[in-house]
Amino acid sequence: MMLTHLDNCQIGDLEDRKRIALINSLSGFKSLNLIGTVNKHGQNNVAIFNSVVHIGANPPLMGFISRPDSVEKHTIENIRETAYYTINHVNKEIFENAHQTSARYKRDESEFEATGLTTDYKFFFPAPFVRESNIQIGLELKEIISVKTNNTLLVIGEIKHLLFPSEVWGESGVLDIEKAGSIAGSSLDGYHTTQLMKRMKYAKA
Amino acid sequence: MMLTHLDNCQIGDLEDRKRIALINSLSGFKSLNLIGTVNKHGQNNVAIFNSVVHIGANPPLMGFISRPDSVEKHTIENIRETAYYTINHVNKEIFENAHQTSARYKRDESEFEATGLTTDYKFFFPAPFVRESNIQIGLELKEIISVKTNNTLLVIGEIKHLLFPSEVWGESGVLDIEKAGSIAGSSLDGYHTTQLMKRMKYAKA
Repeated sequence: MMLTHLDNCQIGDLEDRKRIALINSLSGFKSLNLIGTVNKHGQNNVAIFNSVVHIGANPPLMGFISRPDSVEKHTIENIRETAYYTINHVNKEIFENAHQTSARYKRDESEFEATGLTTDYKFFFPAPFVRESNIQIGLELKEIISVKTNNTLLVIGEIKHLLFPSEVWGESGVLDIEKAGSIAGSSLDGYHTTQLMKRMKYAKA
Repeated sequence: MMLTHLDNCQIGDLEDRKRIALINSLSGFKSLNLIGTVNKHGQNNVAIFNSVVHIGANPPLMGFISRPDSVEKHTIENIRETAYYTINHVNKEIFENAHQTSARYKRDESEFEATGLTTDYKFFFPAPFVRESNIQIGLELKEIISVKTNNTLLVIGEIKHLLFPSEVWGESGVLDIEKAGSIAGSSLDGYHTTQLMKRMKYAKA
């Protein structure tokens, strides 16, 4: 097997689009989620994010990475305005609609309408859930932290509402997200189904 | 389809282990990486992380979430001491070894030896790569940011070296990480292979 070795200078010399595609491949498989928001005038927004991560279980916290200068900026503006948002798993049925939310829509356009996804307002929660998603999470903003090196933001929220198909919740507490139809991403363009190999026991030394 | 709805009080009332397994399921599929480090006395360490995320392509930056109070603390201590570390994709062949690195080993034990993984020192890079991994990344620490809400850390590093099988690098710049054998995780126990459904074009409004 031939190996390619690139050092930091060689990476810097790559053509922009190629470097972006390459570096986005490096973290490994990615979570795919739709983040639903609304601004104070009632204009809703939904956008795909591949950077949602677990932050803690008690209190239940989730994080995601956002760039203030990108197409994602409406999401972060709305979260700053209202302090509420939803995270909704992308599944096999809606991955093409979800991908389309990454296009540059205008501030007064609804990405829900433009991409064929449906708002789902419930529990008197201010932000819209995505009806077509099987795993839906409503969060309240706790903290926005800035990465100095390149001005990206880590947005942290606490889970206030959680919805999922009852049949995917196992005795151990784990959700079978594969059974729920959730999918994985790679780089900025790859959409993958998964196949469980094994669930491992808690490791002991 | 029956739905389960939990609000924040019901989540708080769950038994600890069950809540941890549930909340860890919510971000979606996770990247699985081994982080290799060494302390100033030459004692190496390797640990599995499911929270590595893309931070930026120019400069090429990656991040991961760490808890100072957990089994992951040797990794963060070593990174603070030496400023260098490696990120190595977990693949189908080594996922059981990789999982075993999450056990609580003592400070003076090498998780490499204990779990059957092999250190790979090269390019005069201070931290060990994982020989069994097909995609290997050497990074220099740039920034450690603290999440106030629960004292987790976001660790940001810049890519200095990158190695991958030449045959998985496509014209567009994307690495075919599925072809490289990389796998995805779910919650704290699930290991999954993937199957590409589709690569999507850059979305336009």
